[in-house]
Amino acid sequence: MSNLTLLSEPYFCPHRLNKYATLMAAGNGYLGLRACHEEAYTDQTRGMYLAGFYHRASATETTELVNLPDVLQMRIELDGQIFTLLSGTVVNYRRELNFANGELTRRLEWLAPNGRRYRIVCQRFLSAKRLSLVCSRIAITPLDDAACVTISTGIDATQTNSGRQHLNETSVRVFEQRYLQGVYTTLDGSKELTISSYCEVAPQTESSFYAKNRRLTQHCQGRVAKGEAFELVKTSWIACSSDEHYRPDAALAELVACVAPGYEQLLSESALSWQSYWQSSRVVVNSRDDGDQRALDFALYHLFAMTPGHSERCSIAAKGLTGEGYKGHIFWDTEVFLLPFNLLTRPAAARQLLSYRWHNLAGARAKALENGYQGALFPWESAWSGEEETPEFAAINIRTGLRQKVASALAEHHLVADIAWAVDVFFQATGDKAFMHERGVTLLKETARFWIGRAVEVNGRLEIHDVIGPDEYTEHVNNNAYTNYMAYHNVALAVAYVQRLANDDGEFISQAKDFLSRLWLPQANEAQLIGQDDSFFSKPTIDLSKYKAQQGSQAILLDYSRAEVNEMQILKQADVVMLMYMLPWLFTPEQLEANLDYYEPRTIHDSSLSKAIHGVVAARCGRTAQAYRFWQQACLIDLGDEPHSCDDGIHAAATGAIWLGAVQGFAGLTIGQGELCLHPRLPENWQSISLPFIWQGTSVLLTLTHETIAVSVASGVLAMRIGEQQVAVRGSETFLISDFFTPVNGSGTMQEVQP
Amino acid sequence: MSNLTLLSEPYFCPHRLNKYATLMAAGNGYLGLRACHEEAYTDQTRGMYLAGFYHRASATETTELVNLPDVLQMRIELDGQIFTLLSGTVVNYRRELNFANGELTRRLEWLAPNGRRYRIVCQRFLSAKRLSLVCSRIAITPLDDAACVTISTGIDATQTNSGRQHLNETSVRVFEQRYLQGVYTTLDGSKELTISSYCEVAPQTESSFYAKNRRLTQHCQGRVAKGEAFELVKTSWIACSSDEHYRPDAALAELVACVAPGYEQLLSESALSWQSYWQSSRVVVNSRDDGDQRALDFALYHLFAMTPGHSERCSIAAKGLTGEGYKGHIFWDTEVFLLPFNLLTRPAAARQLLSYRWHNLAGARAKALENGYQGALFPWESAWSGEEETPEFAAINIRTGLRQKVASALAEHHLVADIAWAVDVFFQATGDKAFMHERGVTLLKETARFWIGRAVEVNGRLEIHDVIGPDEYTEHVNNNAYTNYMAYHNVALAVAYVQRLANDDGEFISQAKDFLSRLWLPQANEAQLIGQDDSFFSKPTIDLSKYKAQQGSQAILLDYSRAEVNEMQILKQADVVMLMYMLPWLFTPEQLEANLDYYEPRTIHDSSLSKAIHGVVAARCGRTAQAYRFWQQACLIDLGDEPHSCDDGIHAAATGAIWLGAVQGFAGLTIGQGELCLHPRLPENWQSISLPFIWQGTSVLLTLTHETIAVSVASGVLAMRIGEQQVAVRGSETFLISDFFTPVNGSGTMQEVQP
Repeated sequence: MSNLTLLSEPYFCPHRLNKYATLMAAGNGYLGLRACHEEAYTDQTRGMYLAGFYHRASATETTELVNLPDVLQMRIELDGQIFTLLSGTVVNYRRELNFANGELTRRLEWLAPNGRRYRIVCQRFLSAKRLSLVCSRIAITPLDDAACVTISTGIDATQTNSGRQHLNETSVRVFEQRYLQGVYTTLDGSKELTISSYCEVAPQTESSFYAKNRRLTQHCQGRVAKGEAFELVKTSWIACSSDEHYRPDAALAELVACVAPGYEQLLSESALSWQSYWQSSRVVVNSRDDGDQRALDFALYHLFAMTPGHSERCSIAAKGLTGEGYKGHIFWDTEVFLLPFNLLTRPAAARQLLSYRWHNLAGARAKALENGYQGALFPWESAWSGEEETPEFAAINIRTGLRQKVASALAEHHLVADIAWAVDVFFQATGDKAFMHERGVTLLKETARFWIGRAVEVNGRLEIHDVIGPDEYTEHVNNNAYTNYMAYHNVALAVAYVQRLANDDGEFISQAKDFLSRLWLPQANEAQLIGQDDSFFSKPTIDLSKYKAQQGSQAILLDYSRAEVNEMQILKQADVVMLMYMLPWLFTPEQLEANLDYYEPRTIHDSSLSKAIHGVVAARCGRTAQAYRFWQQACLIDLGDEPHSCDDGIHAAATGAIWLGAVQGFAGLTIGQGELCLHPRLPENWQSISLPFIWQGTSVLLTLTHETIAVSVASGVLAMRIGEQQVAVRGSETFLISDFFTPVNGSGTMQEVQP
Repeated sequence: MSNLTLLSEPYFCPHRLNKYATLMAAGNGYLGLRACHEEAYTDQTRGMYLAGFYHRASATETTELVNLPDVLQMRIELDGQIFTLLSGTVVNYRRELNFANGELTRRLEWLAPNGRRYRIVCQRFLSAKRLSLVCSRIAITPLDDAACVTISTGIDATQTNSGRQHLNETSVRVFEQRYLQGVYTTLDGSKELTISSYCEVAPQTESSFYAKNRRLTQHCQGRVAKGEAFELVKTSWIACSSDEHYRPDAALAELVACVAPGYEQLLSESALSWQSYWQSSRVVVNSRDDGDQRALDFALYHLFAMTPGHSERCSIAAKGLTGEGYKGHIFWDTEVFLLPFNLLTRPAAARQLLSYRWHNLAGARAKALENGYQGALFPWESAWSGEEETPEFAAINIRTGLRQKVASALAEHHLVADIAWAVDVFFQATGDKAFMHERGVTLLKETARFWIGRAVEVNGRLEIHDVIGPDEYTEHVNNNAYTNYMAYHNVALAVAYVQRLANDDGEFISQAKDFLSRLWLPQANEAQLIGQDDSFFSKPTIDLSKYKAQQGSQAILLDYSRAEVNEMQILKQADVVMLMYMLPWLFTPEQLEANLDYYEPRTIHDSSLSKAIHGVVAARCGRTAQAYRFWQQACLIDLGDEPHSCDDGIHAAATGAIWLGAVQGFAGLTIGQGELCLHPRLPENWQSISLPFIWQGTSVLLTLTHETIAVSVASGVLAMRIGEQQVAVRGSETFLISDFFTPVNGSGTMQEVQP
């Protein structure tokens, strides 16, 4: 894995502090740590977040992921001058995130206002092995003369979520004149947090400690000769009461146990965990565009950082653990955009993500009941308790003073079926019957029961009224194609799994079968088009080029009200394309093409979930070049030039979509109906793609070129379908693509060879 | 008043951001506004405070003065560069606070990192006329080329008190595309705050508004030609639910009414209020040291800024309205150090300060009862409710994890008598019988009843055990001289006033007289020394020179525990000297000298209240040179060079003490027992001192030189005692000092001429 790419920040830009704080954030699924500089900047949002550590600051606020007390900030004075990159001159600045081991390194030379030069090297990592461990190291070398260095750092609980404070400071301590510890309790008393820190400095350094105004601080002061480094290594241990065996004194003991190994050894042990992750998940492409590999490494780095492999009570927030956007809430993004990657590389993590929903069934049942439905209606936004966390009202309209009811929680019900879809692909990929018996079948049945009760009878057929599909620019419509097809799929899955795995429940099965026989599934018209909903085709269109040029910014809402947008053929993301992505076997290649061509010009792609899915569907249509354009654009959602694209956190689902685009789109590896399917469609720029995955317990390495399919199976047999042919691979085998597909139009597009 | 001094900051120093934010803070008794720069700095504590607007963030926290949403901060970009004085080069920087009208002006030239120069002028004031009104103006002139200027400013409710949030954002609005308004409620729902703001910019400026994450922001963008100014005038109106006629829409109307007059006219009208203040209060000295006049102007500027002339429900916090030190709580400082100034210059304000205590009698009675006493035991630290706000436990000892009980609230009872002392001087100075009938006598009687119950009988005499005097380095002692004498004074005052003004209460009078006849008053020994308490003289002494050299820092507590300090003759401030200051008629000049000489070497002056009082007593001993040294040192408590001397707010009592030192010490104007007394003792450096005051409704201007006493009475007759002689002045009269006093030792010291 020595060839893993780096993410570099080549110069210091005060306008991009938050972009890079997000892009280069550290994470291990338990903790997330924004890549803020040691020295503070007023425009920089510092942040450390712990998976599942949510709190609601007051009755008028929304539950949010708590921004924890800060352990990385350092106030640095060099010969009495406050160190900040805003002053003096910055020379040879470079910051790099090493995807291979998660270490962030910043090297620079600072020509201070007094004319003296100092070399400063800052390093840090969040351990991938000991999830509570944060290590950082700073080395300051005066280049012109001996220097007096002072560093004040500690545990800073003045941190808030934009001014909302969630924590009471219960206790601050210094043990044995060296170990700092702060214990904090959420205002509602439900959770406790313990942060312990230790700063290692040269013995002759003077240290003093003080606690004031929610800050526990160690003040270190020392002299250092010209050319020698003043070094401070800070080790911090973050623990919370949701952890197993949590106790503040145990947390201190864990910290103390990290002191002896020291920075390098702790980094090595963490790097080993990273190595094993990359080995089992890294997608390697041989592309003419270096950015492709970097985008994939970036995506997979963050997919690791955000995925809580340690707990079934946590899931993945819309911004992972990198920022406060969407308050750290969990959406359908997790099941549809993030679960597939985990499923094929870390099935245990995928199991945990689904278990999170199972643990929260009570909230989903309660929400269904409150809304007059049966079964489980999962919350549109979910946090710790499984209750609906979507604010009831949108932010105030500052011009009118009115607050609109938030429609998503009331009508964006497709996530119920999305979860069911995920349960099915999980079982297909893992064959985990224990999960299905204990949890999966219940999830399928309860979600199916919701749909059975949700449908209404119109002239003898069942319809689903007043919903919002994934396209949130079109609200309160009837028979949204995505929703109806997915609801059907949900109920059909429930029937199949109940019959196969559970005690037959006659009443449920008969209700479900009645639903399936009567539910209206919008059909393609003569032009092969499926209407997004009952009313869609009757609405007028407008030229969207202006808005497509600013996609992601929701600029349309500056010119039109939501109500006006709702009455036009304007899509945030395309529901029918999304549906064809989810259930590809239901639609013909002609239908894919026709709908892609119809809906894409009407889609602004204001959702970060849009582009990559279009890419996969375009690839499945055989339009590899178009797919590649979509995919490359999707790769720039966070990595692009826009200085504020991800200030409040990474687009978590978009990182999952980068993987989806490469694996499902270009490698063409998809989970079908009971089988794994392969249909490679490599972009011209790519000579090869190589990807590891696990299918039903079998580890596989798949390597594709434009001519060959190489499959290497660690043990056992991999059964899969390539094109229209079933193959079973034992050991390593290489196939010729031309044995499975024939080229169409000589353009690299392939058609299945009939077996 | 055109010769009022200025307070200048001659250069930008990132280490002194908070010192100057305090020194140059604006205030009008209703609002206080730290002098923070428009652009933010991470080390700068921004702050706006409203008198009486307290809240307790949670059960484990202490009630504190709420740091309100910020209206002054501006994010400024000039040709895309973020404006901060840390970057580029700052040329011709100068910030000045004009004491005459309270206007703060900053002028500078900024050579930006891109090599272009911009002239920036920032002005602001808090209206002394319309107490809710904050005005600020910024003018930016590009000097080298046309420039693009963007300013983002609004109402920023991410502000906290060191991370403690007190306010819910109830509503944010933009009315008529121009008026911003935020309504905030304390977390406990008890108080509401409305902030309304309007930004006036040139018509061609583009403005947009947005509300996010507790910030309501106006974003202004415009181009300006080389040499022309981009100007933004921001007018804000701060109102709260404790105000009369408070309503958010009324607040908006008030703001709108300020738009037409504009900055200059609003400043003029405020300046008129300042002018009248200075006319009725300014002390003018003709000194060889310019710093003396500046210190007096500084002190009186802040005395105006901190004194809530608008409400009887507010008093003066230990840091006024300039910072969060002592959580904005009210101590005995107000009655002893701040009331005398108001008494002689703004008697209505003095009445309000005493009424604050009267309104809070219920809390004082409850505290007495809880502690097993009768009468009124006022809280050591007071806020809005009159309940004891002193935290029960001190901050955690970070080494041991222990919290000590805070002794002050339990035993520092002298403030009860201090309040009684203040009621008496108030009546002497004003002759306000209505106040005494309604409030004053009750205060005297209830405080007296406390002492009657507080004393214990020991061998037939009454003693007061287990108290803390003003010297907080000596705790839990018996018969603290200050306390016993002041308690006696308190009860004697109660007897006198009850007999004179109230229905005779036979039982109280007889109890009180018994108390007075039996209370032990520590007597001077052969050396004329009065023991600070029963045990004081038996304790060992140590050399304090090391600690006196760092006075104000409490450095002694780094070397000795509080318990150890308690067992030595080590004083934070000298109780016996303080006592002689308070009740001077009880002690002989020899006793004053002997005790000053004994206690001063044992006093570290770690309290900001110490030096100036020593100065007054030294002056009364005729030691003018020593007194002047003490006084000049006292003037430097905030104004001195120490960069962090007043980061968390002004030493409010110390500003009162600057006035006390000049007026009571050097002019020698004191309120005696039923009469106004004058005994001038001008320092050698001073040619004259001139001061206005009001005595029993009569406005007087007193001008003293080393030779003459000029008294000018506006109307009526002023009766006073000069030295040992009674005089009655009508109109203007000038006396020769030599007619009243004879020089002693030719050193400028005077002795009374026997009449």
